[in-house]
Formats: sequence, C-alpha cells, structure tokens
Amino acid sequence: MQSVIEKALFELTGENVRLTGASRTDTGVHAYGQTANFGTASSIPGDKFIYALNRLLPKDVVIRSSDEVPAGFHSRFDASGKRYRYLICNTAQRPAIMRSRACHVSQALDVHAIREAAWYFIGTHDFKAFQAAGSCTETSVRTISSITVENGQDNLLIIELTGDGFLYNMVRIIAGTLIQVGTGKIKPGDVAGIIEGKNRKKAGKTAPAQGLYLMEVYYGKTTEQ
Amino acid sequence: MQSVIEKALFELTGENVRLTGASRTDTGVHAYGQTANFGTASSIPGDKFIYALNRLLPKDVVIRSSDEVPAGFHSRFDASGKRYRYLICNTAQRPAIMRSRACHVSQALDVHAIREAAWYFIGTHDFKAFQAAGSCTETSVRTISSITVENGQDNLLIIELTGDGFLYNMVRIIAGTLIQVGTGKIKPGDVAGIIEGKNRKKAGKTAPAQGLYLMEVYYGKTTEQ
Repeated sequence: MQSVIEKALFELTGENVRLTGASRTDTGVHAYGQTANFGTASSIPGDKFIYALNRLLPKDVVIRSSDEVPAGFHSRFDASGKRYRYLICNTAQRPAIMRSRACHVSQALDVHAIREAAWYFIGTHDFKAFQAAGSCTETSVRTISSITVENGQDNLLIIELTGDGFLYNMVRIIAGTLIQVGTGKIKPGDVAGIIEGKNRKKAGKTAPAQGLYLMEVYYGKTTEQ
Repeated sequence: MQSVIEKALFELTGENVRLTGASRTDTGVHAYGQTANFGTASSIPGDKFIYALNRLLPKDVVIRSSDEVPAGFHSRFDASGKRYRYLICNTAQRPAIMRSRACHVSQALDVHAIREAAWYFIGTHDFKAFQAAGSCTETSVRTISSITVENGQDNLLIIELTGDGFLYNMVRIIAGTLIQVGTGKIKPGDVAGIIEGKNRKKAGKTAPAQGLYLMEVYYGKTTEQ
C-alpha cells in the first residue's frame, strides 16, 4: 500500500515522497483506518490531495481524508491511540464470501465467556505474554481502554479493542486467546493469571491476519471518541 | 458456480449430474443462500454430500447444508419465497475493502425517506415497472412481505426484502429507486404512482450487481421465517 501511494504522489508532485504510516500492518490485515504523513514542496493544498490521489490509486486503496499538518508531525509517534477490530465467522462450514475478511471458527463459541474474559484485558497491564515471541520494545506495558464483543449479522462475532498502543501481534494473540475461551480451552478466570505470568506460551494462538482490521488511529489527549 | 459444483459431483459420483438452482444470479451477485437440487444413483447419504463436496470445492464456493429430497422436488418451482439483501456503502470516497461487495453512493442518503418509500412496495402489486425491460413472464404480480432498512457499521445501509418471488432485476431496480429517494431525486410519496404506472422508465436505475445478496430461499407455506 505504501509504495502505490508513493507512486501516486510521485505522479502528482514529481517528488520522491516518503510516506510514514502509523501502523505496519502484516499481509492480509485490512488497513481500514490507517494514517500516514509525508513532506512535499507541492502547491496542492493539503485538503485537495484526497481527490488527486483517489483518481490515481488502484481500486483496492482509497484515501478517506487528507489535510496539512504542522512540520514535525509524525503519524506513528504522535498517535495517542488506536482502535482495532477482529472478525470471527462462527459457522459450521468454512465461509466463501467472507473467506479473506474474517477468521473462521467452526466450533460454536460461548460469547458470554468471551465477554467475561475480555474484561481482564481492560486497564494498564504488562502485555508481554501477548506480543510475538522475540519482539523487542522498550516496554510492553500498554493500556486497553475498551473491548466490545458483539454478535453481528450472518454469524459474525465482532471484537473491537481500543488502546493507547498495541504490541506486535497483540490484537491477534488477544483474539486467539478469546477464541480459545469461546471454545472452552481457556477459562475466563484464567486470563488474569496469563497476563500476570508474562509468558507468551500461556496465552492463546495468534489468530490469523485476515480477521484483523485497523479501524482508526487517534490523535490528541484521549483515545476515546 | 453451477459448473464447479457439477464438476465436484462428477468427481464424487462418476455421474454427469445436472444441478438445478433456485435462482439464476447475475455476475457479481453474491449467492449467499442459493439452493439447488440434483438426481444421483450414488450411495452417499444426502446429509453427507456437504462434507464430501466442501473438500472438493474451491475456496469461493461452499455448501452450507445438504439433504435428500422427495423425487420430483424442484428447487426453483417449489420455492415459496426468497430473501434478498442490498448493501449500500454511503461514504464520500469510494470504498476499497468493500468495493466488490456493496454499491457506493457518495451523496448522503436520507434514510428516513428511504424507509418511508419502502412501505409502498410491501404487499401484492404488479411490479411491471420494476423488471428489466424486455422481460417475459406470465405475470409480473408479486407479493413483498417485508422490507427492512437498517444502518449497519461503517456507513453501510442494509436493505432486506422478503417476498414470494422476484422478477428479473426487480431487487436491483427497487434498490436503485430507493437510492434515488435517498438522494432526493424521487419523493417517497411518488413510489405508489410509479408502481401503478407499470412503466419501467419511471422507476429508478438498476442498482449494480455487486450490492446484491441472495440470502435465503424458503420452502413451505410461508415466506416468513
């Protein structure tokens, strides 16, 4: 995605513009609300880039908003929070239409147990058990301000997480843990201990990328809308 | 879709099986709840075909249920009703992720007006104005038992129609008419006259195929679930 936008920016400005994204999304993850910044000497007004870029971009990439930002703005370092969605298709047979847009779980999920387990993630915790093994970050302490678990149409389960930041694979490991809670392999009450234990092996599997959506990146003092 | 299932049935049974579908869906339409019947001398029990077929079918086709039916059963002629969904993505910019799964309308839609207009379609009417020009059917009288218009997540508008049967392009022309009501080009109160006039040219445009989903085919005495 980055390179197709940079290519379109080159066509527009004649400059080799470098795009800085708020989040590095893995292959298969849906970047619904990604943000990015770039520097340019172009005379095109910031709020007009949206129209110029959307005419040049391929069908699978769209700019939803554009604006000028103060010099020094950094879409990743200045972000105050993010909202992710994880979609689970809970049907006996594999999905056809939703095959690349949701994670398929054939066993019936106990949504009540998933909601109960979700509560334990809310708040400020060391999420070391919920980051990809071998990750290297200054601190693995993060704050999750909300998790919602909703039954959507057509047997979709919609999990949304809002927080000040997420470690590498953190949402997918939380989703994988909640799926194992839903199938009865992990008890809701065990989640507190899994977080405290800081051991990746005790948490659930990393749920597949195709269920994950970056919905929104927040700027400013609060991560709440 | 028909040919890939027939190919899988040939692999399973060694027979050149001919599949009879309940609905001929145009290219781009999503056949979420299509039904079909076939005859076979195979000893595979009816309720086991689902598993055997799903192993052989490509990822974009899945069987959701299978069962033995009485000889002479016809998935199209014996259907008592159908439920369709039409998805509209109502965002200023074109959608990327939903590009082939919804119709895009950039102008803000008046959902209240759409709901008001939808009422006029409910009941038994001659829907001649709402079938593709040049269609040839014995009668264009159909009964629509319900239309719901719901705001979904992410600026999706979800229109669902249940009826005893639908003429060629009827759901797409009704959706196109409702979109024109939503943008103010047609007044809700004009819909009654458009139905009565039986003139295809007075109804709205045929909305694009990618927004249309065949959700369910009903059998038995009622079209209601």
